[in-house]
Amino acid sequence: MDKRLKQQLDFVLEIDKEKNILRQTHLSGHGRRENDAEHAWHMAIMSYLLREYSNESVDIAKVMLMCLIHDIVEIDAGDTFAYDEEGRKTQKAREDAAKERIFSILPEDQKNELIALFDEFEDCETSESKYAHAMDNLQPLLLNHSNNGDDWKQHQITSKQVYGRQSKTKLGSERLYEITDHLIQDAIKKGFVKE
Amino acid sequence: MDKRLKQQLDFVLEIDKEKNILRQTHLSGHGRRENDAEHAWHMAIMSYLLREYSNESVDIAKVMLMCLIHDIVEIDAGDTFAYDEEGRKTQKAREDAAKERIFSILPEDQKNELIALFDEFEDCETSESKYAHAMDNLQPLLLNHSNNGDDWKQHQITSKQVYGRQSKTKLGSERLYEITDHLIQDAIKKGFVKE
Repeated sequence: MDKRLKQQLDFVLEIDKEKNILRQTHLSGHGRRENDAEHAWHMAIMSYLLREYSNESVDIAKVMLMCLIHDIVEIDAGDTFAYDEEGRKTQKAREDAAKERIFSILPEDQKNELIALFDEFEDCETSESKYAHAMDNLQPLLLNHSNNGDDWKQHQITSKQVYGRQSKTKLGSERLYEITDHLIQDAIKKGFVKE
Repeated sequence: MDKRLKQQLDFVLEIDKEKNILRQTHLSGHGRRENDAEHAWHMAIMSYLLREYSNESVDIAKVMLMCLIHDIVEIDAGDTFAYDEEGRKTQKAREDAAKERIFSILPEDQKNELIALFDEFEDCETSESKYAHAMDNLQPLLLNHSNNGDDWKQHQITSKQVYGRQSKTKLGSERLYEITDHLIQDAIKKGFVKE
C-alpha cells in the first residue's frame, strides 16, 4: 500500500475513537449520554436541512465537513462541558496539542486542510463557521429541551448561563436564535431550568 | 413557530433515534457494537478524505449527505446484517414503509429530496452512489480487520461471503477494492475469516 493511502486509512481508524468521547447531553427519550461522533453526525444533517435560515449564504459542503470534524481533537483533549469554567481555561492548550498529533496522521496537504477548517470553526468569523456554531448550540438544546431539561437540572444550570452559551447562535442565524429564545423561555416557564 | 420550521425540527428530533440502532460491527479496540449514526458519520468523513480514489468524479456534498442519511430508515426497519439472507428478503418492504413515514415528517420539498437521495443510494447507479457504497463496505471492513475479524468469527462468515459483500466496492473505486482484497487476503492468512 502506498504511503499516502496508508496515512489516510490510519487516520480513518484513529478517529473511530471519537465514538467513545461522551458529552454531557443525553439522547432524546431520556436516553444514555451522547458521544461526539453522534453529535457531529446530527449537526451535519441539521446544517443541510436548515441552511435556508443561515444569515449569510454558505458553502454547505464546507459546513457539513466542519460539523463532522469539529470535535476530533476531543479524542485526546476530552469533552469540555459548556458550563465548566475551570476546564475551559485549559481547553485551548489541550486541544492544540491534540490537533497537532491527530491531524498529523494524515498526508501533509490533508493535515493542513483539516487544521485550517478546525481553526476556522474555532475562530467563528466566516459565514460557514458562524452557521456551524449555531448547529453546535441548537443540537444539544433540542435534545435537552425534549428531555425536560434533565441536563440543566443535573448540573444546576441557570437560564442566564444557557443564554450566555446560546448567544453565538445569533451570529449564524437570527431565525434559529428566535427558536432558541422560544425554547429557553418555555424551559423557564416549565421549570426545566433555574431562572 | 411556522409550520415549515416545526416540521424540520420535528425531523431533527426524530432522527436522534438512529443513535440507538445497533449494527453487528464492533468499534476498534474490541469495543462495543457500533450504531448507525456513528457508522454514517465515519463514512461521510471517509468519503471526503478518500474522494481522490473514486473511479468517477463526484459531487462530494451529495456523497456526504447520502452517507449521512442512508440508514435513517433503519429507525423503523432495524439494521439488516449484511449476511442475514432471511432478513434481506423482507428488507426492502420494511425500509419502504419506514422511508415514507420518517421522511414525511419533513416539508414536502425536503421529503422528496431526501427520498430521491436515499433511492439513488439504493439503486447504486450514479457515480456518487457507487462511491458511497464503497464507503459503506470499507468502513466496517477496516474496523473488523482491526479487531482480528471478531465480527466474522462470531457469525462464522467465510471469505467467499466477505468477497460477495465487498464486490460492489469495485464499482465505486478500483483502488479501494485493491485495498479491500489486500485486507481480506491478510484476514485469511491470519485466520480472521474462514476460507
